[in-house]
Amino acid sequence: MAEITLYSYWRSSASFRVRIGLKLKKIPYEYRAVHLINDGGQQHSEAFRQLNPGREVPTLVHQGRVLGQSVAILLYLDEQFSTLSLFPKTSYERARVLQLCEILNSGVQPIHNLRVLQELEKRFGADQNAKDEWSSYWIRRGLDILEAELVQTAGTYCIGGAISAADAFLVPGVYNAHRYKISLAPYPNIERVYKNCMALEAVQAAAPEAQPDAPKS
Amino acid sequence: MAEITLYSYWRSSASFRVRIGLKLKKIPYEYRAVHLINDGGQQHSEAFRQLNPGREVPTLVHQGRVLGQSVAILLYLDEQFSTLSLFPKTSYERARVLQLCEILNSGVQPIHNLRVLQELEKRFGADQNAKDEWSSYWIRRGLDILEAELVQTAGTYCIGGAISAADAFLVPGVYNAHRYKISLAPYPNIERVYKNCMALEAVQAAAPEAQPDAPKS
Repeated sequence: MAEITLYSYWRSSASFRVRIGLKLKKIPYEYRAVHLINDGGQQHSEAFRQLNPGREVPTLVHQGRVLGQSVAILLYLDEQFSTLSLFPKTSYERARVLQLCEILNSGVQPIHNLRVLQELEKRFGADQNAKDEWSSYWIRRGLDILEAELVQTAGTYCIGGAISAADAFLVPGVYNAHRYKISLAPYPNIERVYKNCMALEAVQAAAPEAQPDAPKS
Repeated sequence: MAEITLYSYWRSSASFRVRIGLKLKKIPYEYRAVHLINDGGQQHSEAFRQLNPGREVPTLVHQGRVLGQSVAILLYLDEQFSTLSLFPKTSYERARVLQLCEILNSGVQPIHNLRVLQELEKRFGADQNAKDEWSSYWIRRGLDILEAELVQTAGTYCIGGAISAADAFLVPGVYNAHRYKISLAPYPNIERVYKNCMALEAVQAAAPEAQPDAPKS
């Protein structure tokens, strides 16, 4: 039995980040799907609320210890499992990786996730087009900032030649950009790093469509 | 000369978090005010954009190394300066502190910051009342989650009896709740921890109204 259980939704970009980390580090885990839409949102079940009061995926359980929030989970996994470091060893480099993660983690994803789009519709009558424009605006803003940072730091990956947690955030971020048909032409560093990441089997195995709860096409 | 420079705006809750960390750790720093509204937003100046492409406060400079994002800055400071630990030594406890930080860092603040409120007004004609209700909704949602976590972990502070980075996030979060006249009655743990933090001189010295760029009353 795997000592790690990951509660995940195939399309959740925060779940995707953690799956990339687990796969890159070759940590086996049990996958438990939490469907964020079916049954009025399975994350709202009493059992899941007991596990994580935030009712969010990803939620990780390791040896009975429960953890939420993708940044916290990736840092924890990196300290617990010594296979492939997701964070550099030097203090400033590690903080820079975290800064890049946060550009997407706090600067983009929270502003256009499902919950927020639902409230835009409810409160302001935002239709699909208005919601798509909202999402695209914040994604573009985040990519602008990330590209300006990557000009300084990127090589094969976000920080030079070593893959890191920042790449585990970049890939789902670009996935979202694709959903909104945002061109990567203004973002040559992001595009290069994304392609390099997607060439890795570990990242492919973490992708939404490779998950057991993805709809069969 | 202080070896640290903090670019900050008195009312910015992310700047407030870093100021609390600096004061708790007794790290001297030079304060440089960046007014987010005057001059069309001083963070948009070319000089500041060169420093931080995200054009956000807080931005920290330490020995010529530039860092943005409050979570990254606090982790960095904690590794560089051994006075008072803002993160616990054990891996799971440290991750739990980060999880609590992220409940506010990614779950609340980004959804109702000035940038987002400006877009709500521009795109959906949201008036002051609609914007206040929007902010209050997301703040309450975050406090609900934080309170449910604190029931499990809190003592004098967010995690037992030792102050941590989680408290440096909680205090500005509650400050924002006060701005929107949100009652803390449903949140006894948050209220207790907040009062305990505000009793500390270090936290008082970090408060918005104690900053050199706060308007004179």
